[in-house]
Amino acid sequence: MSADEFDTIRDLFAPLATDAGARGLIDDVAVLEAQGEIVVTTDAIVEGVHFLADDPIDTVAKKALRVNLSDLTAKGATCVGALVTLIWPDSRPASQIADFARGLGEDLKLYNVPLLGGDTTSTPGPLTVSVTALGKPLGARVPSRADAQAGDQVWITGEIGDAWLGVMSLTETPAILGAMPSDQVDAFAAFVRARYRLPAPPTAFAEAIARFARASADVSDGLCADAANIARASRVAIRIDAEALPLSAPGHAYVSQYGNDGLVRLATAGDDYQALFTAAPERRGEIMSEAKRLGVAVALIGDVETGAGVRLVGAGGGELTAGASGHRHRLGR
Amino acid sequence: MSADEFDTIRDLFAPLATDAGARGLIDDVAVLEAQGEIVVTTDAIVEGVHFLADDPIDTVAKKALRVNLSDLTAKGATCVGALVTLIWPDSRPASQIADFARGLGEDLKLYNVPLLGGDTTSTPGPLTVSVTALGKPLGARVPSRADAQAGDQVWITGEIGDAWLGVMSLTETPAILGAMPSDQVDAFAAFVRARYRLPAPPTAFAEAIARFARASADVSDGLCADAANIARASRVAIRIDAEALPLSAPGHAYVSQYGNDGLVRLATAGDDYQALFTAAPERRGEIMSEAKRLGVAVALIGDVETGAGVRLVGAGGGELTAGASGHRHRLGR
Repeated sequence: MSADEFDTIRDLFAPLATDAGARGLIDDVAVLEAQGEIVVTTDAIVEGVHFLADDPIDTVAKKALRVNLSDLTAKGATCVGALVTLIWPDSRPASQIADFARGLGEDLKLYNVPLLGGDTTSTPGPLTVSVTALGKPLGARVPSRADAQAGDQVWITGEIGDAWLGVMSLTETPAILGAMPSDQVDAFAAFVRARYRLPAPPTAFAEAIARFARASADVSDGLCADAANIARASRVAIRIDAEALPLSAPGHAYVSQYGNDGLVRLATAGDDYQALFTAAPERRGEIMSEAKRLGVAVALIGDVETGAGVRLVGAGGGELTAGASGHRHRLGR
Repeated sequence: MSADEFDTIRDLFAPLATDAGARGLIDDVAVLEAQGEIVVTTDAIVEGVHFLADDPIDTVAKKALRVNLSDLTAKGATCVGALVTLIWPDSRPASQIADFARGLGEDLKLYNVPLLGGDTTSTPGPLTVSVTALGKPLGARVPSRADAQAGDQVWITGEIGDAWLGVMSLTETPAILGAMPSDQVDAFAAFVRARYRLPAPPTAFAEAIARFARASADVSDGLCADAANIARASRVAIRIDAEALPLSAPGHAYVSQYGNDGLVRLATAGDDYQALFTAAPERRGEIMSEAKRLGVAVALIGDVETGAGVRLVGAGGGELTAGASGHRHRLGR
């Protein structure tokens, strides 16, 4: 990109950076006022890996932010600042950058996130967006993956598997829509594709997670894989009741068609960006009433046990899957 | 990459993340203890844009960190944590990741930087490394680009232009080495290539910058372009004396051959990663004695004036260049 194009980009992003600490994006750094703990996370998304080349560009901006908000939410923190690094392909029209900025601006407003800064560079490769999000803990402690205890119950927010149904319907397996009721294919396709393109991390539940969770993680690599991360870090086993998995209407339709294989697929698919957490059984009532009060869906899906690994258990008590590899794009976080 | 490969990567990086807040890289987030202001910056480097495909991979890791340390240093801050996002090409041998981690580890130790976390993903495109660095201000204020005042003097650390000579000698213009004394071509080539691959931000001078600087910026896009950023943000003009530019022996040899055109080229080339700052004239003695005490090279290269823009002025007082566009890869920071 030319120097002029970079100036244009700055002109597009500067109005989004209204926080004084952002210094109007004219400086080399941002300055954040902090007292106590700052929670920090960073996640990058890459065209062809985490989103599709023809996904609407405003949803790419939003997804890049939201996957990071998902990490903070699962840790009981609220975002107090984001840095957005835009690595723009030489081959993609620079005119799309205005729509990227518009989408980003909409989400910064929706989630009340100050844009603190970032970087922009060109690339001969695919569009890549790297976001760092800084958060403030909403409780006395930041739950880690390592704090699950045998006897805890396992909870998840929202519904799982839709993002995978969405991306499958767009790519390898459009036939996946054949599992849907014929009069609802269009509506279901739109629904699951939106879930893929626009994850909706349960930010409203972050404070409750800070209050109730022992261990937590966001579900990005697949429910079973992320549960396995908690199990490994906490040196415990996790049993998940397949029948208890929260599914959307398209998810139910898919499982009606594919049975246990379908359940396993949805539980290992990834890109859900929901919060998975464990809590002491005596917190159950509080968790449910808080979720009801906030209008956030939570489901009790299993238990923490002594041992190791994750078991996804069917209605009859039999194990549906031995492994939990998920579809990991990523390392650790 | 497969899940196994991601585990391998985590195993390579986890030993580098010794800070308790990094949570051993097993968690979704890091936790940083903060009191007061946190200075935040993020810069990404892309293969084929900011480094060459065949640059040694350990130097790529170091460069990614150092370009961010350069931003913090120029703002009078010291790094208290880094997040490193590694976007690894499908086509590059994963075996190189161990060398990347080794190089990163060496620099984390050299600069005493805690690795707090990061992300790893595969890409069908070029190797890209995105780093976010968090810093603690070493003085009462964090100098911005906007605080230069007419009457200030303009200072720069280190020497300029070598990185450009280095990359030119490796790419389009190996003939550039023809400007060098024939008995020193090999030594000069090694020197300027190292300057390109391994910038050396003047971290030892960060505290002095915090104490003395009114306005500051790091020189990444080229001395004239970064001076123009200060001039624009501060609504002042900056005059730079071409004769005062600090040059290395290869830089001097290049200018002997190409004269004023050579000087202009070195002053607009970029990738220097030195600190450019303005200070009140009465601080001159202190700045020089502090630089001497710390063993950091600083040069007084010009003045801040009323007006707008940057002028690079030759020995006779004539202007060598009207513009200051530099070779900007990047936006703002």
